[in-house]
Amino acid sequence: MTSAPSQDPAAVGKMVYLFGNGQADGDGNMKNLLGGKGAGLAEMSRVGIPVPPGFTITTEVCNSFYALGSQNPDGLEDAARAGIAHVERTVGMGFGDPENPLLVSVRSGARVSMPGMMDTVLNLGLNDITVAGLAKRSGDERFAFDSYRRFVAMYGDVVLGMKPESAKDADPFEERLEAMKHKRGVEFDTDLSAADLKELVSEFKAVIKERLGVEFPDDPWQQLWGAVGAVFQSWQNPRAIAYRSMYGYPGNWGTAVTVQAMVFGNLGDDCATGVVFTRHPATGERRLYGEYLVNAQGEDVVAGVRTPQPITKEDGASSNLPSLEGTNPTGHNDLVEACNRLEDHFHDMQDIEFTVQQGRLWILQTRSGKRTGRAMVKIAADLVDEKQITEAEALLRQEPEKLDELLHQTFDRSSASDTIARGVGASPGAAVGKVVFSAEDAAAWAARGEDVILVRIETSPEDVVGMSVSQGILTARGGATSHAAVVARGMGKTCITGCGALQIDYHGERFTVNVAGRGPITIRQGDVISLDGTTGEVMRGAVALVDPVLPAEYERMMSWADGARRLKVRANADTPEDAARARAFGAEGIGLCRTEHMFFGKDRILAVRQMILASDEAGRREALAKILPMQREDFNGILKAMAGLPVTIRLLDPPLHEFLPQQAEEIADVAAALGVDRAEVERRVEALHEFNPMLGHRGVRLAITYPEIYETQAQAIIEAACDLKAAGVDVMPEIMIPIVGLEAELKQLRAQVTEVAERVIAQRGTRVDYTIGTMIELPRACMVADKIATHADFFSFGTNDLTQTTFGLSRDDASRFLPAYIEQGLLPRDPFVELDREGVGALIKIGVEKGRSVHPDLKVGICGEHGGNPASVEFCHNAGFSYVSCSPYRVPIARLSAGMAAAAEQVSAMSLAG
Amino acid sequence: MTSAPSQDPAAVGKMVYLFGNGQADGDGNMKNLLGGKGAGLAEMSRVGIPVPPGFTITTEVCNSFYALGSQNPDGLEDAARAGIAHVERTVGMGFGDPENPLLVSVRSGARVSMPGMMDTVLNLGLNDITVAGLAKRSGDERFAFDSYRRFVAMYGDVVLGMKPESAKDADPFEERLEAMKHKRGVEFDTDLSAADLKELVSEFKAVIKERLGVEFPDDPWQQLWGAVGAVFQSWQNPRAIAYRSMYGYPGNWGTAVTVQAMVFGNLGDDCATGVVFTRHPATGERRLYGEYLVNAQGEDVVAGVRTPQPITKEDGASSNLPSLEGTNPTGHNDLVEACNRLEDHFHDMQDIEFTVQQGRLWILQTRSGKRTGRAMVKIAADLVDEKQITEAEALLRQEPEKLDELLHQTFDRSSASDTIARGVGASPGAAVGKVVFSAEDAAAWAARGEDVILVRIETSPEDVVGMSVSQGILTARGGATSHAAVVARGMGKTCITGCGALQIDYHGERFTVNVAGRGPITIRQGDVISLDGTTGEVMRGAVALVDPVLPAEYERMMSWADGARRLKVRANADTPEDAARARAFGAEGIGLCRTEHMFFGKDRILAVRQMILASDEAGRREALAKILPMQREDFNGILKAMAGLPVTIRLLDPPLHEFLPQQAEEIADVAAALGVDRAEVERRVEALHEFNPMLGHRGVRLAITYPEIYETQAQAIIEAACDLKAAGVDVMPEIMIPIVGLEAELKQLRAQVTEVAERVIAQRGTRVDYTIGTMIELPRACMVADKIATHADFFSFGTNDLTQTTFGLSRDDASRFLPAYIEQGLLPRDPFVELDREGVGALIKIGVEKGRSVHPDLKVGICGEHGGNPASVEFCHNAGFSYVSCSPYRVPIARLSAGMAAAAEQVSAMSLAG
Repeated sequence: MTSAPSQDPAAVGKMVYLFGNGQADGDGNMKNLLGGKGAGLAEMSRVGIPVPPGFTITTEVCNSFYALGSQNPDGLEDAARAGIAHVERTVGMGFGDPENPLLVSVRSGARVSMPGMMDTVLNLGLNDITVAGLAKRSGDERFAFDSYRRFVAMYGDVVLGMKPESAKDADPFEERLEAMKHKRGVEFDTDLSAADLKELVSEFKAVIKERLGVEFPDDPWQQLWGAVGAVFQSWQNPRAIAYRSMYGYPGNWGTAVTVQAMVFGNLGDDCATGVVFTRHPATGERRLYGEYLVNAQGEDVVAGVRTPQPITKEDGASSNLPSLEGTNPTGHNDLVEACNRLEDHFHDMQDIEFTVQQGRLWILQTRSGKRTGRAMVKIAADLVDEKQITEAEALLRQEPEKLDELLHQTFDRSSASDTIARGVGASPGAAVGKVVFSAEDAAAWAARGEDVILVRIETSPEDVVGMSVSQGILTARGGATSHAAVVARGMGKTCITGCGALQIDYHGERFTVNVAGRGPITIRQGDVISLDGTTGEVMRGAVALVDPVLPAEYERMMSWADGARRLKVRANADTPEDAARARAFGAEGIGLCRTEHMFFGKDRILAVRQMILASDEAGRREALAKILPMQREDFNGILKAMAGLPVTIRLLDPPLHEFLPQQAEEIADVAAALGVDRAEVERRVEALHEFNPMLGHRGVRLAITYPEIYETQAQAIIEAACDLKAAGVDVMPEIMIPIVGLEAELKQLRAQVTEVAERVIAQRGTRVDYTIGTMIELPRACMVADKIATHADFFSFGTNDLTQTTFGLSRDDASRFLPAYIEQGLLPRDPFVELDREGVGALIKIGVEKGRSVHPDLKVGICGEHGGNPASVEFCHNAGFSYVSCSPYRVPIARLSAGMAAAAEQVSAMSLAG
Repeated sequence: MTSAPSQDPAAVGKMVYLFGNGQADGDGNMKNLLGGKGAGLAEMSRVGIPVPPGFTITTEVCNSFYALGSQNPDGLEDAARAGIAHVERTVGMGFGDPENPLLVSVRSGARVSMPGMMDTVLNLGLNDITVAGLAKRSGDERFAFDSYRRFVAMYGDVVLGMKPESAKDADPFEERLEAMKHKRGVEFDTDLSAADLKELVSEFKAVIKERLGVEFPDDPWQQLWGAVGAVFQSWQNPRAIAYRSMYGYPGNWGTAVTVQAMVFGNLGDDCATGVVFTRHPATGERRLYGEYLVNAQGEDVVAGVRTPQPITKEDGASSNLPSLEGTNPTGHNDLVEACNRLEDHFHDMQDIEFTVQQGRLWILQTRSGKRTGRAMVKIAADLVDEKQITEAEALLRQEPEKLDELLHQTFDRSSASDTIARGVGASPGAAVGKVVFSAEDAAAWAARGEDVILVRIETSPEDVVGMSVSQGILTARGGATSHAAVVARGMGKTCITGCGALQIDYHGERFTVNVAGRGPITIRQGDVISLDGTTGEVMRGAVALVDPVLPAEYERMMSWADGARRLKVRANADTPEDAARARAFGAEGIGLCRTEHMFFGKDRILAVRQMILASDEAGRREALAKILPMQREDFNGILKAMAGLPVTIRLLDPPLHEFLPQQAEEIADVAAALGVDRAEVERRVEALHEFNPMLGHRGVRLAITYPEIYETQAQAIIEAACDLKAAGVDVMPEIMIPIVGLEAELKQLRAQVTEVAERVIAQRGTRVDYTIGTMIELPRACMVADKIATHADFFSFGTNDLTQTTFGLSRDDASRFLPAYIEQGLLPRDPFVELDREGVGALIKIGVEKGRSVHPDLKVGICGEHGGNPASVEFCHNAGFSYVSCSPYRVPIARLSAGMAAAAEQVSAMSLAG
């Protein structure tokens, strides 16, 4: 908490700072004195942006006001009169002028933004005389009286204190407005006539008289003094005090008061109002793009009452409408100049609201414009070429998630679509296909050339093959990190999960959704649907698709990111195909190769089941002997695809029952392989049931009870590595032990794996280098990371499981209450999507610190789903990770995010140095 | 890690320290110089204990030995000769004397115990001549030659280096021994004759000659120098180096070498050997209790070859055997004197091994004697009365777990029993009853007056009523903290869990166990079995029971503990009966009242199910309206039973599906109550399925989605409290929100509960004080405990769930691999029984520190199963907890443990001050 040095609070320097007309007394650095708003307006005015003129009363005056017992210090009124005179001169209107009345806004402004905490008065300067002038000049009496009645109510509430103390009590102005609508038999404010509004103004003034015993002040000057005092007072209102206390802002900062001319785009045909982007927000081209309306208010552009006209001739030509450039070259030139200045100042594409009042351009608001992924990379690259920003700054302008738009096929949103349900957009992309309800059907239909969408209540590892041949996956349960979501992202498949509206009837081979206003809609097997994996929309029928074309700027941006980043980026990949795809996307290794994903091939699952259901070690070894050559072949493929790069292979992780036979036929097959009867197999399957499989017999725990499983996997890895090395392929296997929570577990497994590896190396006669490390995915592992690190060459934080255990939250079950948490604001976001820094992140930091305390060069990575989430990548960068690993399609996003994290450091270091 | 200052390693002071004959050069404080063993022998000798005499060569000599390149420093041999002369004088035998040979042991001894790491030589001094003397004096030629062949082999291995390098290679002496047995056609070593053994000695010497080219040294002096050098060398053997490195002990500590006379109890009828306790180990009475054999070796007493004789006349009279006291009053007096000295020295009951050689008593070993719980409290109290120890020291002598023996009925172990299986002794006690296989049968049989044992594969909350009417519970699955175990301990019921040998056939109403050597044994419904909840033994038939009678010393011990302890002790109790029982055991409040345990009454479960399966809030509120008066009655009962003491009531915690109907009839009942059809109920039941219920929709998460549940519970609590207060009962309700992981959760719930409470208080017109706190049972809660604490009046660490989440380990599933972890030494003990300090404890410390950092007087307790575990109570004391809470029957154990933790501090402070 900062606190100002003690000083005489009544001592005040210059009280009023003018701005407008390309000049300003203050500048952007004077936030403490002028507030954030006043300083910003001064700065814009100073660099030639035509902002409506005005003046700012300093925070010192505010403090003096309080020190004097809520009195204005001497000299303030004179200074303010000089300020109003400056505004009058600049806009060519008069404060209280019956013909051409200047109206002003009076706003608060502290050195930091305190949104909504303090008061504002708009349209100040209106009275029964000036309202006529406004009506005449605007040619819109209704508009004039609507402004007037709003002003009286706002002034009554804010300045005169008519606002009820409790939100439960009725606002007297609202009451009268409602009564008037009732009397007129209309529903909306906009249905009231100018005469109605005029009558309301009288009623408003009457209620003020009645309640407070004072007349509403008609004198604009009296209005102004009242409003300035009220804004000062609002610095000490209870909600402002509470807000400051919450953020630790001291009370002696005070607020500034900015008085600024109101401008109107509806005072005649020499008036207009519009919105313009300084570059094209969809393509990024450097040209103005926007629209405007002649003689209109700002709301009219948005409301779509009249068709707006384009800004440029080019857009005019294509839309067959007169453009600003064509019809008003001067206005256009002014706008171009203002846009240029704004871009020069902010070094970014701006989204600008402007008003032309009687031929004069005013900029009302400017902000960085929203843009597509394509425009994002082009604009940033262009700005670098224009020397407006550095490459590091260009990186910081990127929103990495938007790369998705560039990398996936997308729907042509200009074509018609019929959305029937919405779920979690779990894996981006656009998929169109015929609905099937089982992995078997998916495989069969795909085999005959059909595009299919696999629809399931949820998916399980047995569905993986079916998923891999589908265009997209749709599930009724599960969230953004459910099995379906994780596997789909790994495959780059479009996927929507947690679509609770789906009532799936497997038996009837159909699903039903209730669409509001349309009743139940049934989709049967073979019907075509479209899935938008970004928005989560499920659409009936085939929506048209468009192919991605990567812009040249994409490659430039990625090369800057790669140049800047310290974090390596690897991919999670389980097959040579995935590995090759990841490599194409720039992956620098495999951070997570899940060996269990290799177990579901038709030729393998029987041997795996035989292993699981064997009654003793000999039986397991017999089955493992069948699995060994298959796994060796798997590892051979993936190590070869990643030649020259490290491949982290995780030994078997999930609870064994995930592989169990469920169908009668499968059970019979296993019984035959084991030479026991079906009842015995059923008994063993039953015995493997777990109450909480996520917390059960899995990972290293399998290896403690059945050492032969990891021994076989280690043998397959090292045999594959030796064979490749002998054939001249550069291999870098990293063997990873999952679910370690005890030092003793890793110590024992490291010894076992090393023994196997050295035996294979001796047998094969080829030395390969390999490392042995562990997943850190349990809170306990973080707490004892220093001990675990003595047996580890690397740590890979498994943030999926670490999030589950830290929160005590099963991601498969969270969909029942997590949405309520997000909705009620209890959690800012899904912690399975963006790493929870406060809890999980704190544990990770402990883990990294403890690990490096005994093993300073410990390699540290992350292989949870968070490895591809930009905010989480930033966390990993800051926590000193060596690499992140994510699904192949997110590799570019992770590269960009990692580059941004490094660029942020550079920029921050430079700004400190500067 | 301590490390000695650098010094000239060859500089040596006094080399040899004599002991024996009531004197010693050294004392018990000289461990660094004499090693732990040498210092201990010196101390015993000094206080008049007749230990076999000997001398210790210092660790300085060891260091000098290394500094000189494995040479003895000058003067060592002279000093050792003087030492041997001292031993000869003291025992009246001669080293190398053909008639009366002195034999010695040569042992290593570092300043800390390094068990098995270094070498030892026994029976040194034997050769072809002295063996004859030994044979003659012992009258047992076989014994003499057996000692000789052992000596030759041991010397050959340790000193001459015959021991094979790898354990896989055959030991040459073992080979010859095996060959001899083969030749003689015998199975055991003991079947070989003196002549055979003599022949073996020759063969052993021959193989040494053959392998090493040296003669076995017959000269006792040469033997001695060899053995001393070998012991020095063993300080640097690889396993000793590895051991030191593991514990961080520096290599320059060195080892001492102790040379001590061997004494024999079988050299004639003036010899004997025996074991004696200085007080009765079962009753604690102050009198010798033990047995001995005349003219025998120590092993003979244990082997049961001859019937040993009692020590005292009293025991002699009752066993009709001649006693030492009666037959050899002098020997008895010597023994009494030695025992008195040992008790005076160690201030505790000793378990002593002694040998009388030619009329002379030698104490071979003494240690604190094992005792029953009854003897434990009596002996400690007596020692206080005898002014031997303080009350604090008496407390530190207690093993709190042993109080169980005093508090529960136990089996009469003198009667016959037939153990057919063994499981986890999950809740102590002794139970006898007829086997039933369902809670319903248990209730029905108990209703007609039968004692029953409920046997289940596992139990679920629906079994609670059946458990409460059973004598004991036996389950095939689950560990010491499974549902069955937790509930049984809460009820004080005997329970054995995880008895994997049980093959339960519910349909056939029987279980089968395979007993080694006896084949399958089947127990049918109605058969009587007995359960020992302490040992985990399952016995066929009814084993006789004995009632507990609390000794007066128990109450004294508890009053000392209560006087010493800072920790409050509360109980986990869910009913007024449990609460009253806990209060009788000294509980100072309820630390955990589980409201869900109240939901299983026959009159309630339907309303609970109706609530869970309602389709909307209105439906839930309708069902909750039925539940409200029942819960109010529950809370009324428990608050009344605990009048004047705090009662922490946990709002609903478990996943809702635990309450779901399973049987067709139950489903029909719920459907009728809800007014929907059965299929709809089945659909909703299915929809509530969770993959990992432990990590699912439970605790505060239920309240976030269905606020009305906690609102109703809070209303019931405060209504009950108001009613009691109005009736003059002092109530202290503490409302506890479970499964909190986010600050926002507790903030929201605190506001909701407070609103309900204040409303009730206003309605009832009676102000009651209540507090609101939370369980800390998730790692995330520990990491953000400072934020959570701003909304909490108290923290209660739920160490069951915290252990589950920290380890990522479901206690319901852990029985499949946790036993392997304990067996393989990966985990020292079950972390659900004794708190894991390294991981879970570290998180708890973070939680307490963070919580108290913002809320210094935050009340902190524990309500997991660990609250009654002595080591865990100690942890809680050290971590600054305010209280522990445990099941009622463990309250005395927790009180005692808490007293011990405080006493340990006192004693440690005094020893520092002293």
